[in-house]
Amino acid sequence: MKIIIVGATGTMGKYLASAFEKEHEIVRVSITGGDIPTDITSPESIENMYKQAGAFDALICTAGPTYVGPWKKMSHHEFKKGLDGKLMGQINLVLIGQHTIHPKGSFTLIAGALTHEPQRNFANASAANGAVEAFVRAAAIELENGIRVNAVSPTVIENSPQYFPYFPGEMPTTMKALEFGFRKSVFGAGTGQVISI
Amino acid sequence: MKIIIVGATGTMGKYLASAFEKEHEIVRVSITGGDIPTDITSPESIENMYKQAGAFDALICTAGPTYVGPWKKMSHHEFKKGLDGKLMGQINLVLIGQHTIHPKGSFTLIAGALTHEPQRNFANASAANGAVEAFVRAAAIELENGIRVNAVSPTVIENSPQYFPYFPGEMPTTMKALEFGFRKSVFGAGTGQVISI
Repeated sequence: MKIIIVGATGTMGKYLASAFEKEHEIVRVSITGGDIPTDITSPESIENMYKQAGAFDALICTAGPTYVGPWKKMSHHEFKKGLDGKLMGQINLVLIGQHTIHPKGSFTLIAGALTHEPQRNFANASAANGAVEAFVRAAAIELENGIRVNAVSPTVIENSPQYFPYFPGEMPTTMKALEFGFRKSVFGAGTGQVISI
Repeated sequence: MKIIIVGATGTMGKYLASAFEKEHEIVRVSITGGDIPTDITSPESIENMYKQAGAFDALICTAGPTYVGPWKKMSHHEFKKGLDGKLMGQINLVLIGQHTIHPKGSFTLIAGALTHEPQRNFANASAANGAVEAFVRAAAIELENGIRVNAVSPTVIENSPQYFPYFPGEMPTTMKALEFGFRKSVFGAGTGQVISI
């Protein structure tokens, strides 16, 4: 299976790439490098990435930049800009990628526990996650040729301890559990699912 | 109580304004007129509206323009533009309005059943609704001075029969039930709630 991993140089992407590369062809995509440097906040950059990658079987996205900061001082510019990555970037990966993915292929996006378990400073990420979750349910009923779309929704992950102070009371999820969430989406048959980790 | 109703000339807004005006001061806001013509896709227009309205006790938004069309042919421009109203417009009403709302005031936004019950052609609205629902949960924990924020989430409403064909199997909600959902948010004590109708 040819799997594109967007965010391949990040904590999650790197782990997933190394877990899946034993059995699959991995195309590493990242804003800072990988096989195809790509900025998902730019639709043109996404189009160019798909042109270079060619037809594929699965896309995994673990890249979801958002704006982090206190609600009280947030400007509408900051909020809107924060949605360009995790929300619009990921939706554009599906919108544009639907034309070159193989039949029965799958898209797996990244959401997160902040959809239902908000934390201070993360209203922007909550909105992005909520949009991604509702979006996969909606896109799933319109995608054709057996193409599937799901989201994986983890809480804070064990390999990102720098975030622990912002998520009091959240038991960090293991990288193994995260991997299995993505496995369920990519190798299972579900679509329109939000896979909570 | 001084209540700003955004979308006051629409089907929902008109009904709510006439239900609440017996006991409250209503400021009607609408893109096509009302007391203060306002385009919620423009932050400047929202700022100007709040300047004219002055301090207030509650804001109700029933205005949520989105992009409607088949997923397969949707462009990223159409998708993004579709989020300017129901998603960013409503979030900006809270982001900007938090500075002039009275302590213990409330914001009530409009979401919708499409968050969890998608229908063809409405992926854009699903994403917007999902964002709004997650957003109210997140903003609720950061708003100060007892200020509350909720969303009302109706299915298709009985006074909008033009939408019935797009929502097969959805029992239209009554205008009275819709009104009571908004009453719960504005006159109750809940915050961060999604009130499903």
